[in-house]
Amino acid sequence: MNLHSINTPSLILDREKVRKNINRMEQHISTQGVSLRPHGKTAKSVDVMQMFHEPSRSGITVSTLKEAEYYFNHGFQDILYAVGISPQKLDRIFALIHRGARITIILDSLAQADAAANAAQHYRTRLPVLMEIDCDGHRSGINPDSSLLLYLGRYLDAASFLDFQGVLTHAGESYGCRGIDCIRQTAELERTRAVDCKMRLEKAGIPCPVVSIGSTPTATFGRDFSGVTEVRAGVFMFQDLVMAGLQVCHIDDIALSVLATVIGHQKEKNWIIIDAGWTALSRDRGTARQIVDHGYGMVCGFSGKPINGLYVSSVYQEHGVITHREGKEIVMDRFPVGRRVRILPNHACATAASFNSYNVVDGSEEIVHQWDRINGWD
Amino acid sequence: MNLHSINTPSLILDREKVRKNINRMEQHISTQGVSLRPHGKTAKSVDVMQMFHEPSRSGITVSTLKEAEYYFNHGFQDILYAVGISPQKLDRIFALIHRGARITIILDSLAQADAAANAAQHYRTRLPVLMEIDCDGHRSGINPDSSLLLYLGRYLDAASFLDFQGVLTHAGESYGCRGIDCIRQTAELERTRAVDCKMRLEKAGIPCPVVSIGSTPTATFGRDFSGVTEVRAGVFMFQDLVMAGLQVCHIDDIALSVLATVIGHQKEKNWIIIDAGWTALSRDRGTARQIVDHGYGMVCGFSGKPINGLYVSSVYQEHGVITHREGKEIVMDRFPVGRRVRILPNHACATAASFNSYNVVDGSEEIVHQWDRINGWD
Repeated sequence: MNLHSINTPSLILDREKVRKNINRMEQHISTQGVSLRPHGKTAKSVDVMQMFHEPSRSGITVSTLKEAEYYFNHGFQDILYAVGISPQKLDRIFALIHRGARITIILDSLAQADAAANAAQHYRTRLPVLMEIDCDGHRSGINPDSSLLLYLGRYLDAASFLDFQGVLTHAGESYGCRGIDCIRQTAELERTRAVDCKMRLEKAGIPCPVVSIGSTPTATFGRDFSGVTEVRAGVFMFQDLVMAGLQVCHIDDIALSVLATVIGHQKEKNWIIIDAGWTALSRDRGTARQIVDHGYGMVCGFSGKPINGLYVSSVYQEHGVITHREGKEIVMDRFPVGRRVRILPNHACATAASFNSYNVVDGSEEIVHQWDRINGWD
Repeated sequence: MNLHSINTPSLILDREKVRKNINRMEQHISTQGVSLRPHGKTAKSVDVMQMFHEPSRSGITVSTLKEAEYYFNHGFQDILYAVGISPQKLDRIFALIHRGARITIILDSLAQADAAANAAQHYRTRLPVLMEIDCDGHRSGINPDSSLLLYLGRYLDAASFLDFQGVLTHAGESYGCRGIDCIRQTAELERTRAVDCKMRLEKAGIPCPVVSIGSTPTATFGRDFSGVTEVRAGVFMFQDLVMAGLQVCHIDDIALSVLATVIGHQKEKNWIIIDAGWTALSRDRGTARQIVDHGYGMVCGFSGKPINGLYVSSVYQEHGVITHREGKEIVMDRFPVGRRVRILPNHACATAASFNSYNVVDGSEEIVHQWDRINGWD
């Protein structure tokens, strides 16, 4: 099987690029003296996560319980479920713990703490817990300046079957930065907010061994990790156009692409029509807010090399429209019906989520492996 | 199983609403004296497509070859694959035809016609073909005024193993209309463009028995179907917020929703956090261009009744943020951690595509069936 023979649209993963991306991040984080806890939500693939080395492969992060179960079934034992717990999900957590997994949950309210404490008591099973901190007003987490920090800390510390581990935060705002300085400031905010919380907790007599922070941009550009114990990040494994726009990577580092076939033209409009629409490319428009807007993806030739100026300007369910960014006339004879192109994604997590498997290449046209992904929740 | 016990996020389908939506469209189209050829791309479910009655269940439309194979395996024999053919997909088409399916392909270029004619000749198997017409500059299809119409028509008519059936068009621009008058004008344009092509072809001695048109808005509001033989539409089965914005349906007709659980609050910001992000709701922002922008979905109570003013204002991979459209303070005690809500989708096709099955209800809280969906291409 090779890039000529497989069906389109298909998801292509360049293993060599993944390897380089992983090695670069592992080296950077280990130089800082902290642990990397890679996030399995981008890859959703045990084959990708097994490319990490010790110590970073010994603890991972997940975004769904399905990921937790899947990674545990493939030998990953220390798993952080980094989405605020809902009470109904606790039974599934304890089922995993009873099978030998170490699952850490996160929470930011007394209601969740109550539910977790009650379930742990019910199962008479210890449950590791991190408190989620909101470092930048981005999404979830408690305000680090609020009195809830100590109140919740005391509650978690005192609950008989909860193992209060510490604090966790995520600098989601880093994705909206323009320029590396902004990312560095965001990284420093992420770190100081989390470390300050740890210090307040410990000053109040509540041990807080873990300080977990991270996002691909802040993990990449952060210069000071003092006080931090672990860094979480996911998208760096594959990289994408949003990350390239943030200067986190070069276009050439992007390991993920969608293989598509030309199915038509509208010459008067300078359009090439391909068989990859939003079902394949996703509707993610993450680069819309950046300096260079890549539409629904950057067009590359069959070899994976970008074709100057071509991008996917609109998508329908199974159709994509390619045109030239500056309106230059496309030589349509270079893209006859049946010709294949590769599209680099805005957001690797979203584009990968459209597919159930990766067609793995090693820089050539041969498919050397097919690796499964596990989308969904059940 | 019921709406309290299933995992979240989950996809909920109200069968009674689907039934009403289907019956309404079947009645409307049959009153016009034309056939309905329902599009299987929204539901991707044989259980939904089997809710159609004769004659509309005797011929269907699909958007992928996986759908074609799946529906054929479940007894649907007359299948229109309504995405411009790429040469590499022809082997799979003929494999289905050799198993007894009637598969019609569409094309808009000589290159595709050549490939189809060669493959049909190779297999010595007749292949039904429709020519795609571009009625509104929306996407694919040949310009109805171009000389290519007759040239391609003659080619298809003469090719020994191709069965030239006629013309097909899709008024994609109808989704961008404001007001029913606009949709009616678009419907009339869709009809007249297709019928004009048929007349030009027949005047040139090329029989053109089929005139296939359709989109949910134009199928709903079109008043004159003279000359048309079949109408294709898909999203009407489920309806969605985009269709409600177009006045194609009422909010109460929307049969599809995502069940989600409250996992947190940011009281200072008037935010409720739920466990449904873009992986569950999709990133479709189809209502952004409409008079009422529903963000990433309208929030309903557990019963499916809209909660005045609440909508999903932002999404992350596994988190959604609910807030009030006009900034009114939300009574957070009404939405404690663990409380479940249902989110109506902007675009039913996109939201459904995030899930592998429907949890079917009949207006109550009981899950009466789980119906599979078939996403993807392989």
